[in-house]
Amino acid sequence: MGVNTQPSHFILTISCDDQPGIVHALSAAVVEAQGNITESQQFSSADTGRFFMRLQVETTAGLAALEGALAPVVERYDMKSEINTVGRPLRTLILTSRAGHTLTDLLVRQRDGHLAIDIPLIMSNHDTLKPLAEFYDTPFWSQPVTTPEEKAQFEKHLLEMVDTHDIELVVLARYMQILSPEVCAALEGRAINIHHSFLPGFKGADPYRQAHERGVKLIGATAHFVTSDLDEGPIIEQNVVRVDHSQSPEELKATGQDEESRTLTQAVRWFSQHRIVLDGVRTIIFK
Amino acid sequence: MGVNTQPSHFILTISCDDQPGIVHALSAAVVEAQGNITESQQFSSADTGRFFMRLQVETTAGLAALEGALAPVVERYDMKSEINTVGRPLRTLILTSRAGHTLTDLLVRQRDGHLAIDIPLIMSNHDTLKPLAEFYDTPFWSQPVTTPEEKAQFEKHLLEMVDTHDIELVVLARYMQILSPEVCAALEGRAINIHHSFLPGFKGADPYRQAHERGVKLIGATAHFVTSDLDEGPIIEQNVVRVDHSQSPEELKATGQDEESRTLTQAVRWFSQHRIVLDGVRTIIFK
Amino acid sequence: MGVNTQPSHFILTISCDDQPGIVHALSAAVVEAQGNITESQQFSSADTGRFFMRLQVETTAGLAALEGALAPVVERYDMKSEINTVGRPLRTLILTSRAGHTLTDLLVRQRDGHLAIDIPLIMSNHDTLKPLAEFYDTPFWSQPVTTPEEKAQFEKHLLEMVDTHDIELVVLARYMQILSPEVCAALEGRAINIHHSFLPGFKGADPYRQAHERGVKLIGATAHFVTSDLDEGPIIEQNVVRVDHSQSPEELKATGQDEESRTLTQAVRWFSQHRIVLDGVRTIIFK
Amino acid sequence: MGVNTQPSHFILTISCDDQPGIVHALSAAVVEAQGNITESQQFSSADTGRFFMRLQVETTAGLAALEGALAPVVERYDMKSEINTVGRPLRTLILTSRAGHTLTDLLVRQRDGHLAIDIPLIMSNHDTLKPLAEFYDTPFWSQPVTTPEEKAQFEKHLLEMVDTHDIELVVLARYMQILSPEVCAALEGRAINIHHSFLPGFKGADPYRQAHERGVKLIGATAHFVTSDLDEGPIIEQNVVRVDHSQSPEELKATGQDEESRTLTQAVRWFSQHRIVLDGVRTIIFK
Repeated sequence: MGVNTQPSHFILTISCDDQPGIVHALSAAVVEAQGNITESQQFSSADTGRFFMRLQVETTAGLAALEGALAPVVERYDMKSEINTVGRPLRTLILTSRAGHTLTDLLVRQRDGHLAIDIPLIMSNHDTLKPLAEFYDTPFWSQPVTTPEEKAQFEKHLLEMVDTHDIELVVLARYMQILSPEVCAALEGRAINIHHSFLPGFKGADPYRQAHERGVKLIGATAHFVTSDLDEGPIIEQNVVRVDHSQSPEELKATGQDEESRTLTQAVRWFSQHRIVLDGVRTIIFK
Repeated sequence: MGVNTQPSHFILTISCDDQPGIVHALSAAVVEAQGNITESQQFSSADTGRFFMRLQVETTAGLAALEGALAPVVERYDMKSEINTVGRPLRTLILTSRAGHTLTDLLVRQRDGHLAIDIPLIMSNHDTLKPLAEFYDTPFWSQPVTTPEEKAQFEKHLLEMVDTHDIELVVLARYMQILSPEVCAALEGRAINIHHSFLPGFKGADPYRQAHERGVKLIGATAHFVTSDLDEGPIIEQNVVRVDHSQSPEELKATGQDEESRTLTQAVRWFSQHRIVLDGVRTIIFK
Repeated sequence: MGVNTQPSHFILTISCDDQPGIVHALSAAVVEAQGNITESQQFSSADTGRFFMRLQVETTAGLAALEGALAPVVERYDMKSEINTVGRPLRTLILTSRAGHTLTDLLVRQRDGHLAIDIPLIMSNHDTLKPLAEFYDTPFWSQPVTTPEEKAQFEKHLLEMVDTHDIELVVLARYMQILSPEVCAALEGRAINIHHSFLPGFKGADPYRQAHERGVKLIGATAHFVTSDLDEGPIIEQNVVRVDHSQSPEELKATGQDEESRTLTQAVRWFSQHRIVLDGVRTIIFK
Repeated sequence: MGVNTQPSHFILTISCDDQPGIVHALSAAVVEAQGNITESQQFSSADTGRFFMRLQVETTAGLAALEGALAPVVERYDMKSEINTVGRPLRTLILTSRAGHTLTDLLVRQRDGHLAIDIPLIMSNHDTLKPLAEFYDTPFWSQPVTTPEEKAQFEKHLLEMVDTHDIELVVLARYMQILSPEVCAALEGRAINIHHSFLPGFKGADPYRQAHERGVKLIGATAHFVTSDLDEGPIIEQNVVRVDHSQSPEELKATGQDEESRTLTQAVRWFSQHRIVLDGVRTIIFK
């Protein structure tokens, strides 16, 4: 556990069918566990009829007492629930390729203490970024992915490493390879990709060239959950930046990389703080 | 009451010294009143040690039942509390002068149903904007304010009108006159001004000229509560817009007017939804 | 001519195949006409091989002298060229329907002297906005467009009015009707539409509902030239605003209307200042 | 010279008293040198009566031919002028202290080829960032600055290194020490500082704490030229980011660091492209 971990400060996230009394039942359980609610957000989805809540609770009674008090509420309302310790670094595996800007941004912020993740492994289909990983004392493994066999091997190793390191989040930091449907399914809800375009917009290859050709006045980046339906996963965060007619596709790309970095880092930060909840094909962000 | 009023949907805002159990006590009272919490925000101020909460509660039991259930909690925790009906238009008096851009923005949005205010009166020290008020069927009263006597008369009439119309909010939509300390005190916490600069920054007269002379690259606007300490009242909202070296003070002013309008309208909207809470010299905005 | 017109200050816009010596030839002509260049922008398009330039020139020698000096340059380089007087209001016809937010923004800014257009006529398929037009002393004509015959009549009248009033710009301020290919062709390069989405993105009907369903985190608006290929015309300006999971399609719509207004007004302002140049399917904006 | 250098592509920047004929004279000289103007910006300052121009010129005739053709124009109009090769990396010395975020941003972008600077030396009053410098293969020198004697030694070495390495730009990347008036004077117009606040606003120490206490809704960063009048140097670039009541001074600081980095990097990029011109106490940015 990292230095920011506060063993008496917990994050509780729940979801269940919307109905009266949920907030009261949860707050009663918190009181029973001698807890104090320090942050609270909720949302009732008109789209799915589900209720979502994120609570931060301080208690000196300990985790077991909190879990014990919550158990009957979770059962009564048929809740999906999760308790995490505030500040515990999330075990994160990063997939990358040759472009290092998003990886750099993640590593810099992690080292500066602004991003609560542990990175037991970076995996890549190129060894280009190995020195960068070494500078940040982060294990790096690479293997070419040019044939179906290599891809299968790479993905097999990926799933093994997810298992070995008890990975909670996989980040595709400009990985540039399409994951197989099986891997997408295995990592559902815990793999985040950065798409170098403002979705929906320019999907597929070379969106900056598409943006130039269409003559758009803003370009953007989109962080989204990985699904087997490429570029269609639930959107987590988006940013744009103004461009003009004078910029070539290459210049758009350089400009867009800043947006890619900050958008992906923001998505990872929210995920590490358990602020992202899936509501069907949409995300709820409890900022 | 306006068309958006929902008599079974209430906004509860409270503040009290921070301590454990508040959220539980409030949610128990809501359950007692057969209420369902549809929106909830809270904040514990490390600066003042106060706890603040805003709840939206739906209940068919009615306002009296909700008030009855809450009364003992309010007493026990020595809370300041307020209950309002969701969507009830706020009784708003607007002070203005000759520049109509912020007034227009308020009137357009009110008429379009995007701003829940009723405007029983616009008061001005010029009759310039009378036709505008008439187009929007809003009562308009003006009197010159050039001498101390006229100022005293104007302010006396202002306080009478606040009383007569049971005014909940006074908006200084580019009023351009300094209110006396007595009036500031009488309207404390319910008078909002728009300052044509990004505070703290260029205070006093002609901030756009000051901005030009300093060569800033962004100009802004600040909506804040009126206090007798000019330009120092609690900040509610700020916006900026990019400018460049080629813009004259006049062009900065034209550019800045859009920011003034949207910043003031946003502040008024939040106030009308009871989303703004004072925490000492700072504001909490429960968006 | 409006009050801002300066009869000795001209805007020269030219385009021709890119080649050396153009700037020199133009500036020599300006000197010959005793002119002083007060603003200058140029762009060489790598996409089309065309060169574009916009000059503002002050001269007491008068328009005829400037035209005379430029004529041989225009001929030598086979230029498309245009000379306009700085500040001359553009003759603008506005098409609208029932939603008044973009129309209001245009009328307010025109009246405040921040938008150099004259509006001899507003045409609509509904009479909803007639009082608004009357308040701003602007002629208003409406006729239902529910049958093919009515549409044909409306469009016939539109083209007649464009002719009668010597219209330089047609603005579709939320007109909500598709113009026939013939009308699109007749107004090519001088009709601007506001699309209530960030193009490319949600095309077609009800983009705010589509945005809600996709769960985007930013919504936007796009001002573009009208072409017969719906929503595919050259983009002039785009803006976005941040939204979140809690907003219904209706709330997205209300939020997006501000972006629609300011985006359309900006596009009209640039057009009125002859700052927009077509470069194939892209626009050059000489800000 | 770096890989991006194009020996036949030049940047010409001039300033002189505003008067007719300048553009013509310059373009005639460009034609004489068989040049083609690929980018052109100009500005006539109403504040100082000076005229400023930046041209990019392509010519196969070479630098000497261009200089020769321009010489009489420069003399005739008493111009300050400068010619640089497009893409030539600027010799840049960086001053830093313990916070590495702005330095990292500069080094990453330089390495990625998005920032045309050479960095012969990083100087610091701490050795904290030595490993970072080493990772990027950049010479690093440090010496404590805690006494007036150490400060004098440090500054003496600084001026020697500026001389030795023929430094064109000194960047204060969160250097956190006040330079003596003598050093400020020696580096006038070629030293850029990043101030961690939106100027004018919170000057002096700990602006994020000041921002928290004032309750601002936006915080920002300002890149400006160093002058002996602290925080009053000509502003080059500013950015802001939205914050809210819930953020502590420490969180404001973390949030603000991103703005500091991108603001400083942008200022350095513009300087390296010779896009920044001083007009009295204001800057002209030829974007």
